This record gives sequence, structure tokens and C-alpha cells, in this order.
Amino acid sequence: MPERHWIEELPQHAGETVVVRGWVATTRSSGKIAFVVVRDGTGYLQAVISKKDVAPEVWDAFGKLTQETSLEVTGSVRVDARAPGGVELQTSGLEIIGPSPDFPITPKEHGIAYLFEHRHLWLRSKQQVAIARVRHEVIQAIRDFFHQRHFTLVDTPILTGSIGEHAGTLFSVDYFDLGKAYLAQTGQLYVEAAAAALGKVYCFGPTFRAEKSKTRRHLTEFWMVEPEVAWNDSDANMRLQEDFVSYIVGRCLEQRKQDLAELGRDLTPLERVQPPFHRISYTDAAHRAQ
Amino acid sequence: MPERHWIEELPQHAGETVVVRGWVATTRSSGKIAFVVVRDGTGYLQAVISKKDVAPEVWDAFGKLTQETSLEVTGSVRVDARAPGGVELQTSGLEIIGPSPDFPITPKEHGIAYLFEHRHLWLRSKQQVAIARVRHEVIQAIRDFFHQRHFTLVDTPILTGSIGEHAGTLFSVDYFDLGKAYLAQTGQLYVEAAAAALGKVYCFGPTFRAEKSKTRRHLTEFWMVEPEVAWNDSDANMRLQEDFVSYIVGRCLEQRKQDLAELGRDLTPLERVQPPFHRISYTDAAHRAQ
Repeated sequence: MPERHWIEELPQHAGETVVVRGWVATTRSSGKIAFVVVRDGTGYLQAVISKKDVAPEVWDAFGKLTQETSLEVTGSVRVDARAPGGVELQTSGLEIIGPSPDFPITPKEHGIAYLFEHRHLWLRSKQQVAIARVRHEVIQAIRDFFHQRHFTLVDTPILTGSIGEHAGTLFSVDYFDLGKAYLAQTGQLYVEAAAAALGKVYCFGPTFRAEKSKTRRHLTEFWMVEPEVAWNDSDANMRLQEDFVSYIVGRCLEQRKQDLAELGRDLTPLERVQPPFHRISYTDAAHRAQ
Repeated sequence: MPERHWIEELPQHAGETVVVRGWVATTRSSGKIAFVVVRDGTGYLQAVISKKDVAPEVWDAFGKLTQETSLEVTGSVRVDARAPGGVELQTSGLEIIGPSPDFPITPKEHGIAYLFEHRHLWLRSKQQVAIARVRHEVIQAIRDFFHQRHFTLVDTPILTGSIGEHAGTLFSVDYFDLGKAYLAQTGQLYVEAAAAALGKVYCFGPTFRAEKSKTRRHLTEFWMVEPEVAWNDSDANMRLQEDFVSYIVGRCLEQRKQDLAELGRDLTPLERVQPPFHRISYTDAAHRAQ
């Protein structure tokens, strides 16, 4: 039985016969030769099926593939510089694990409301995968940035008794027979206390704003990072901030170039994000705004 | 003006004159020579003040120090193998930044209820600092473990419309005029959908259980990590789990030995945490339980 591998691992297995499990992204066929692009979350792989080289049931199975059919493909890994990831699969076996009739998100354009209604399936499309990977890199970079600088993570409570900013924008929860609790809008008061214990701290968790809004870009729930450094002056804070932003952008450029390309992102402005940033005093800013 | 450094950095500045900012942990004096242990969240430093070598106002300032006074100390870094961190400070200057009269947590024993009422100050004590650092290491190790294995972080929503486990244990929130929303008990349904898009995913955020309880160890809010791997069988899951636990324990042993020592932790059982773990089939387990 050949070993099963994730698609991203295949370039290290050129020449070997392997098993790949995933879902059908696209298919096409010329009648004698067929192509299936398989995705497994780590990458995309083109499996080539030559009618004359495979058992009839393999060719028949190909005919039943629809978008997002889950399947297992066996084949030998062949280096091909034109292929995404640099390899393709010369297929010897193909087994359908689960059929996928009428997958609701097709290559045609869908409205945004329709896509949100199918969000759990929309996640599978190329752009959504790229966004999720860039988002992951940003968040891991944030945590690595603070970890490397010896900050201590302090997770602040979500259910809080006190009122943070404006009572009108708080979500409230009945907390047993102890009255109302409120969903935190910030961890600030907690990290400030913790900074005097641990020197350099940060919190990074969900925060809540009960602001009624009709736009899709206004979130009632979002993740927020809040660092606190004891003894930092304004200049040291600005240095920390520009290092922070530059580090995150640098990590994404280094690790997520392919995903940024998938998203059609122009990298030039990102490459310019280098410390030190231009600084302007409050007095100058106020003067220029007049 | 000498440069200001965090206490943990001082071993690299032996022989130099530096500025340290922090809080008073303890003081003692023999009348001619005085000692202040300063903490700044990154470590503890003994500052030695020799009455005959310092200006009278420095000696006077020492006399005013109380527990948790915040201060700035200037002095030269001297290697001393007996000192925590390997260095002490020969003090030339001492300035009080903020006095701290009647700090409520003294070296004497306090009841747990009293300490919880002063949680924001209790955080400053040695054991609490050590716990926070070990906790940080565990969490960073969890995220690094998944990042290194190319998992994608998927943060699942806290405010959810559906009911996860038991309606009776859910906290509910009035969500504008759209009815009730519930605080999530798990991100499972979301990460399962995301695994089919991204292959290997995890969520790691706060979850909520409205279970009424009188014990202090029963949490209504806690952070939970939930990985999902498409195509994993039970054996692969077990392998992932034992690697996961071993990696976290290993990281703490490697990076947090001093904090574990502060907590009086016996490291022997932790050092034994190495994969593969002993496995027992369900049938055997059921048989042995009879």
C-alpha cells in the first residue's frame, strides 16, 4: 500500500507512488486523457488519467466526479515545472469517498448574500483559502513578535462585571442570580495591572461592541491585540509599533507570497513597510490640518 | 545618562553602569550597607547600597522604600554567581517614582478569598509571576506546534445563533431585535467545516458554560483548543495528541525550568512525558474495568 501524503509534501516524493486524499476542484477530459485538479487544503494537484493506462473502473470513476467530490487518488509523482507546486500525478487508481451532487458554489459569479448563506462551503474556494492562510500568518506573527520580545500573554476575561466604555454599546448576559455581566470591549484595565507584575504583557482575544449598524463591515465581535509595557515612554511605544507592523508585513511577504498572489495583491506598497516610519509631532500635525 | 535595561538583560552588561526601573520586592539594611531586591517582571535584581559611597539623598531614599515602591536605580553591574540571574548592582543613584504605602499583600500568609479580592496586586508575587510565564509558554507552544505542522488557525465565533450542547448551560445575550444569541460552548462545528477547506485547522479561544457551581475550580469561561484534521483516522489522531502533549511539556522544561522550580514542581514525571504513550484498545479497557 503506497503511503498517503499531503499535497504540499509531494515535491519531496518525486518518482514515488503515493496516495492523495482530497476534493475535486475541477475536471476536464479530451476523451482519452483526463485531468482532475485535487485540493486538500495544503495545495492543488493535477492528477492525469490516461484511459489506455488505467483499469476501466478508474476511468468510469472519473466520469462520476463533480465539483467537491471527495476522493482518493493513487499515482506516481512526476516533476512538471508548469504545475502548481512543481509536480503532477500520473494516476493509477481513483476511488470516490463521498459524492458531491449540486455543489452550490460554481465558478460563475455569485452575489455576496448568497455566498454568506453558504459560508461553510464558500470557505473551500481558492480566494477564501488564501485569505485564511494570510490571516493565520498575521496572527502567528503577532504572537511570535511578542514571544521573541519576552512579553507574557495575559488572557483577560470576556464576562466582566464592570462597564468599559459606553453602557449603551455593551452586550449583557444574565449571570445566574448575581445580576448582569457584560461582554468585554477591551482587556486594557487587566493588562495594565498585569504590566506592573510582568513588565511586558499583551492580551489578544475577542472583544464585543453592541453598536447597531446596517453595514456588513461593522463587526459586533472581533479579535483585538493590546500590548502594555511598563516604563515605556511615547517614543519607545512608537518604536514598538513600527517594529510590530513591519514584522507582520515582512512575515507575510516571506511566507505567504503565493497566497498574496492568489489574492491579486500588489506587493510594492507592502515591501515599503520598513522602520523607522516618518514621525510628525502633534503640534505639527495640528498646524498642517489648519 | 546611562542606558536603561530590563533586569533579564543585565548579564550582558557586566561592568557597565546602567539604569533599572522596577518595583521593590524586599529591603534589608545593616546600618551601613543596604540591599533592595528590585523586580521588573523580567527578573529580580539585588541592588547594594553602601552608605559611605553614595550621596546622602540616595541613602535617605532607601529609608523611604516600602514593598512595591516603584523606583529607578542606577549602578554598575557586577557579576555574582550567588545572585539570581548571576549579577547584582552596585548602586550609585536611587530615585523613587511612586511610593507604595500599605501594600495589602505582605510576605505573611493570606486567605485565598482575600487574595482573590486583591487579584490585580496578587499578580505581582513570585509564584503568580511564575504561573503566568508557564501559562504563556504552554499557549505559545500550542500555537507553535500547530503552526510548524501547517495547521491554519480558524477563530470561531463566540456569539452564535444555534445551540451547541445543552440549552440549559448556555449564556444568552439579547442580540438587538434579532432575538437571542448564545455564547459558544465549542467551535467544533465551525472547525469541522473549515477542515474540509484547509485540511488541518484549529481554533483556540474562550468558551462558555453556564453551569451553576459552588466550587472555585469550576469555570464558566475558559480557553479551549480544538484541532481538526481532514482524513485522520483514530491512530493518526492519537499520534497527533501524544506529540502535542509531549511538545508542550518539552517546551516548558526547556524554557521555563526556573519558573517551575519557583513553583516547587517535581520535574521527574514531566521528563517522562515522551511519545509513544502506552495504548489500550477500548475492548481491553472495558474488560479491565469489570
